[in-house]
Parts: sequence; structure tokens; C-alpha cells
Amino acid sequence: PQFEVPGFNPATGPIAVHGAAVGGTLCVEIHEIALASHGVTTVSPGFALLGDRVSAPATRIAVCERDHVWFLDRFRLPLRKMVGVIGVAPAGEQVGCDSPGPHGGNLDTVDIAEGSRVYLPVFTEGALLYLGDVHAVMADGEICGTGSETQATVTLSTQLVDEEFPRSPVIETEDAWCIVRSAVTAIEAARDAAATAVDFLRSRLSLSFDDAYMLLSLVGDHRISQLVNPLMTVRVRIPRRPLGL
Amino acid sequence: PQFEVPGFNPATGPIAVHGAAVGGTLCVEIHEIALASHGVTTVSPGFALLGDRVSAPATRIAVCERDHVWFLDRFRLPLRKMVGVIGVAPAGEQVGCDSPGPHGGNLDTVDIAEGSRVYLPVFTEGALLYLGDVHAVMADGEICGTGSETQATVTLSTQLVDEEFPRSPVIETEDAWCIVRSAVTAIEAARDAAATAVDFLRSRLSLSFDDAYMLLSLVGDHRISQLVNPLMTVRVRIPRRPLGL
Repeated sequence: PQFEVPGFNPATGPIAVHGAAVGGTLCVEIHEIALASHGVTTVSPGFALLGDRVSAPATRIAVCERDHVWFLDRFRLPLRKMVGVIGVAPAGEQVGCDSPGPHGGNLDTVDIAEGSRVYLPVFTEGALLYLGDVHAVMADGEICGTGSETQATVTLSTQLVDEEFPRSPVIETEDAWCIVRSAVTAIEAARDAAATAVDFLRSRLSLSFDDAYMLLSLVGDHRISQLVNPLMTVRVRIPRRPLGL
Repeated sequence: PQFEVPGFNPATGPIAVHGAAVGGTLCVEIHEIALASHGVTTVSPGFALLGDRVSAPATRIAVCERDHVWFLDRFRLPLRKMVGVIGVAPAGEQVGCDSPGPHGGNLDTVDIAEGSRVYLPVFTEGALLYLGDVHAVMADGEICGTGSETQATVTLSTQLVDEEFPRSPVIETEDAWCIVRSAVTAIEAARDAAATAVDFLRSRLSLSFDDAYMLLSLVGDHRISQLVNPLMTVRVRIPRRPLGL
């Protein structure tokens, strides 16, 4: 369900990128994510995967240190700093900052981290980039609807790329290409991600459909990004080195 | 859809385990997976995630070497040796070797590898263990319906455990506990896996429901195992060290 709460999942922006033209691709490189001192995790009745078992809203505040967060003052969890929301203005109607889609948005994908490049299709003059929803730590699925939510200062740079990219988000990390798709059901998101990834492999590696499909089945990890937003998000992680990508 | 092909996805067994009693838990430790010299990958029209785009059956044979397989004589893929099918006799009616469930079966989960321990509920006197469907390499999702399928010699040992375990498969690896659940849809499998994992965390760590649910959202990676069998399989990977598990 779409949240109708004004201000839900706020993001910073929009930022117009000089020269970004409809039909092009914007590359956003994330150089640094500097966290605040605390992260907040909440559960609410009826919200997210097991919300039917939550009787009242509850909040836990975790202390963020240099390389970990303390949850319940008991569990020392390694940081997994990531940007939950990053996107451009969508092609058609406006969408909430809580929604993922071809424009990016609330992707809640842990690979959107320091050192990553996020490639987004440009649907509007200037692209109109925005981001927010930073997590100190979050696991694949974001099953209670929140990670360790925190303020942050994100340092990034943008460039316009000439190379052909899918018209949906792609993430480049040190060791993988991630093809990200969102849909009403997880299986539909996975099928869209697989189809987009097969096309990506075909064009980059000059393979037949069958060979690209088999290769993707062997090395393309289809992973849940999140299961709690208005659309479900699945990404395919394609390892770069073994494929020469 | 259930496959009605006799001999589809054959497995070795059943092996009766002396002393395994209904209601108990069987631990299967996988010591070694010794592969054959070749692995086979196939696509078929109408089969698996993108079968609607496959026009005729096709097969590719990969050469397995010591630590990698050669796909198309071009891509040197690191081995990811795993056991696709491992299970015990189910509680009720017979199920095909192509199906996953509480009894294990066709879980197609990459964490079932050398060094892993698989905990299975015992539903029948002697448990009646079986396994097969070994892959030299396979990615999360197994999206074309096959990995690099190969003959193998698997060395394992069994023991009966007294500790309480979920009545569905659990995998212990060097760094994680994986809770594995299968259902008609991926979201249902994820929800079942999350609920089972929350109960697991509550009993092992003496946490409230809310705290276990939040902790799981922070560190429990909900991952697709496979999307191509009669039921979908999702596992939650819970890191052991940060939680003292």
C-alpha cells in the first residue's frame, strides 16, 4: 500500500544536473557516507513483513561508532552504510519517496554504498536527482520496514555517460554489476531483473539469448533488496571479474 | 507446476539412520563434494523464469577443473560446489524429488556446501535421508532451471541432536545460520522464513518478539535460494559472530 503520510521517507533534492537530457543516463558515484551518532529502528502494528504480530509501536535507538553500531547495548553489528533512497524524477506521474521504480527511488539496496556508482535513466531535463533514507546497517529484505535509520552527509559526484544502459537502475560495485528491478510481486521483479540482465550480458558480451540465460543462471545471484515498500525490489548481482566486465 | 516425469531430479537413498525417531532432528554434515569432470546446463521452452523466450531445448557442457569450470570455453567461473537436493521422508503424502518443503528436498540453496551442517526434522522412523542434484556452480535463483549439473561423490556424516530446532531445514555454515522455507510465492516463503528466524533468535538469545524482529531486519539477509521449483525457496542468513551464535 502507498503511504499517504506527508513527509514519509523524506529525501534531499531535487538537484538539477547540468546537461542531463531525456533518454540519457546519469551516473552518481557515492564517495562517502558520514553517519550521525545514532540510528533508529522501529516496528509498527500492521506494517511490513510480520506487522500482524506487533501489538504496539516500538523504537530502539542504536549508537553508531566508527565501524559498528550497538543494538540493545548488547550486539556489536558491523556497519553496512547504505543509501536507501536515490532516484531521479520519474517518467510519468509523480511517485512518493517511499516507492521504487525505473527512476530509482526507495530501492533499499545494500549495494548502494560507499564506492558504488548508480546509473539512472534520465526522464526529465536536468534529471532532478534526490537521495535520503540512509541506513547504518540493514539486511536484505528490510523485513521490519526499517534498518538503522540515520541522518548522514553523503558526498557524491555525477557524470553523464554515453554507453548504453538499461532504462532502470544499475549499480556498479568493485566486484559486481547489479541490475535492479521493482514490481508488485517478488517473482515479477526477479523475472524483470533476469530479463534485463540477460539483455545486459548479451550486449556487453555478444552472447546468444540461450547462452546469456544459462550464464546468468550460473553466476547471477538474484537477491531480495526489500519486501516492504509499495513495490518489491530484486537485484541480480553479476560478478565482474570472471566475465571480464 | 509439479513435474510428472518419472526419474526427474533423481536422488541417492533413502538411507535409514539408526536411532532417528519421529520428532527429533537429524544433523547431516557435508565433508566433501568430489565432482565429475563435466557439468551440464540446459534451457527448455516454457521452463523456468524466462522459458517463454527459449525457442528450442539447448545444452551446454562445461569442463570442471580443480577450482573452476569453463563455460563456453570462454568464462572461467570459480566453483561453487553445492548439493541441490537433500532431505528426509516427508510427514504426509509422498512428494517428488523436485519439490522443496519442511522435509528439505529440492532446496537448491548454495549454502549447502562443503563444511555445512544441514539440520532436518525427522518425520519417519530412521529419517530416510536422500540427496542428489549436485551443482559445480549455481547462482541464487537458479533462474534457467539448472546450474552446472554434475555427478558427484559426497562424503557426509550424520548425528542426532538434542537441541531444539525449527521443524524445517536449517543450515549451519562457518559464519551463518540459514533458516530455509519454501512456499507457493516468494513473499510467503520470506514471511515464513522471517517468522521462523525470529522464533530462532528469541529462543537462542532470550529476546522479545519486537527486539528479535528488529535485529533480524538489521542483520538477517533474506535471500532467494531458487524460483524454479514447484515451491519457491527463501533463506534467511543470520551472521553468527556478531550475535554470539
